[in-house]
Amino acid sequence: MTAPRAELLSINTATVRKQWSLPEIIAGCARHGIRMISPWRDQVAATGLKEAAQRVRDAGLGLSGYCRGGMFPALDRAGRQAAIDDNKRAVDEALVLAAPCLVLVVGGLPRSEDGRTVSKDLAGAREMVRDGLGELLEYARPAGMPLAIEPLHPMYAADRACVNTLAQANALCDELAPDGRAGLGVAVDVYHVWWDPDLKAGIERAGAADRLFAYHLCDWLVPTTDLLNDRGMMGDGVIDLKLIRSWMEAAGYRGMHEVEIFSAVNWWKRDPDEVLLTCQKRHADCT
Amino acid sequence: MTAPRAELLSINTATVRKQWSLPEIIAGCARHGIRMISPWRDQVAATGLKEAAQRVRDAGLGLSGYCRGGMFPALDRAGRQAAIDDNKRAVDEALVLAAPCLVLVVGGLPRSEDGRTVSKDLAGAREMVRDGLGELLEYARPAGMPLAIEPLHPMYAADRACVNTLAQANALCDELAPDGRAGLGVAVDVYHVWWDPDLKAGIERAGAADRLFAYHLCDWLVPTTDLLNDRGMMGDGVIDLKLIRSWMEAAGYRGMHEVEIFSAVNWWKRDPDEVLLTCQKRHADCT
Repeated sequence: MTAPRAELLSINTATVRKQWSLPEIIAGCARHGIRMISPWRDQVAATGLKEAAQRVRDAGLGLSGYCRGGMFPALDRAGRQAAIDDNKRAVDEALVLAAPCLVLVVGGLPRSEDGRTVSKDLAGAREMVRDGLGELLEYARPAGMPLAIEPLHPMYAADRACVNTLAQANALCDELAPDGRAGLGVAVDVYHVWWDPDLKAGIERAGAADRLFAYHLCDWLVPTTDLLNDRGMMGDGVIDLKLIRSWMEAAGYRGMHEVEIFSAVNWWKRDPDEVLLTCQKRHADCT
Repeated sequence: MTAPRAELLSINTATVRKQWSLPEIIAGCARHGIRMISPWRDQVAATGLKEAAQRVRDAGLGLSGYCRGGMFPALDRAGRQAAIDDNKRAVDEALVLAAPCLVLVVGGLPRSEDGRTVSKDLAGAREMVRDGLGELLEYARPAGMPLAIEPLHPMYAADRACVNTLAQANALCDELAPDGRAGLGVAVDVYHVWWDPDLKAGIERAGAADRLFAYHLCDWLVPTTDLLNDRGMMGDGVIDLKLIRSWMEAAGYRGMHEVEIFSAVNWWKRDPDEVLLTCQKRHADCT
């Protein structure tokens, strides 16, 4: 494998969110010659939507995605409608930011008002996800904003996303919008899918349907000390990142390589300039 | 669903391993009218194999399984042979203990001598597992000791087991010993497989091949604070245990319900008599 082109590197802004505000991240990426970012809604809201879009443009940056919509399941119809409404606002924001897609973390089991997970109906939650996706697609497709379903690791099935394999995401796309050009596709995050014995087949299937919308990088550490915030820098873990990139490229993916690292114990504690430099070096050497 | 019969309850000895030695667990289960246990090799070794077998018999108990063999992948041939040799000893011990099966946690990526995970070749590790299983089966089958492959949650793919779905375990059985009566089957642990959208189909397929050898119970807590030792008591989490039992029974499973709870923050800190009483109550009410 040849090294990936440096200009394909994108920084998901969560990677340095503890150190820098969104304007600082935009400036930092521009300073390091990183041309793409993927910001989160809370950061954009804190900056102001128009202000954020303007700063991205002024810095000469582009987006590899917008994080995130989803969270469709809810205990009652009002809750599900509120989720749809919020997702429509996320679509609108993504359009202002000129994002190539809105990334969707679809949600897990429905929760009560005080935040407790009170349902055990996983199949029901998956139906709510399908219905919510279908409804959101009716809004996003004519608006011209592609939706990228991100399968999350099975350890998040209860509380974050009940779509846990690429096979599930592909099946949802097959049902709702079989051709990716119709605005529904997938985001492949190595952290969530690296373990899957059917990963190569899933990537091939998604590529054949033109629905590989995003590719996210980090690494799986051994041991992993926290279910949420102990993701590794590329090269520090056990994921065969070159192999998975070869599968993505063989399936036709030519998009960005978005680095997304949640790391309370390590990278969020470091000098953010060092983090960006490390992302660049590891992107070149390890992915 | 009617409540499960109380006599189907088995206690995996890990559930109270911090509080009690194996002789104490045997005595405690007998005192509470629990008729089945599933002991671990280290506990049996600490007690002495013959002594452990004698105490089980004297207490009028039986085994629902023996924990555990597996850990097949290794960096070199000598390491893989050492694993096979150790697994053969586990088979011998299981025979002395009159266990109905040896449970296999198949191992993850190979490690260096100092314990670091140094390989990223997940497909290679899975081939080592297949080869190791095939070789062990040649020893276990004529000896009359069934082997139960336990798919582990994908969060353990790197360091504990690279068989992460029931579909994978079924495929291994299909390849090596398609009929469960030939001595190769699966252990279904709800903690590891509850999230799987293909779980029902996997249980049906395993049942049709007479390879449902074991059924393990606990619960998935939200939030889960530790990847290893934060399993929940049945009823305290989000797994639909009655639904999964209905699938097991519809697939022909008539065996034990083995409670296996690793819980550093809760159940390992409690009075073990209270833990056993809670297992009995929750088995009746929540599974």
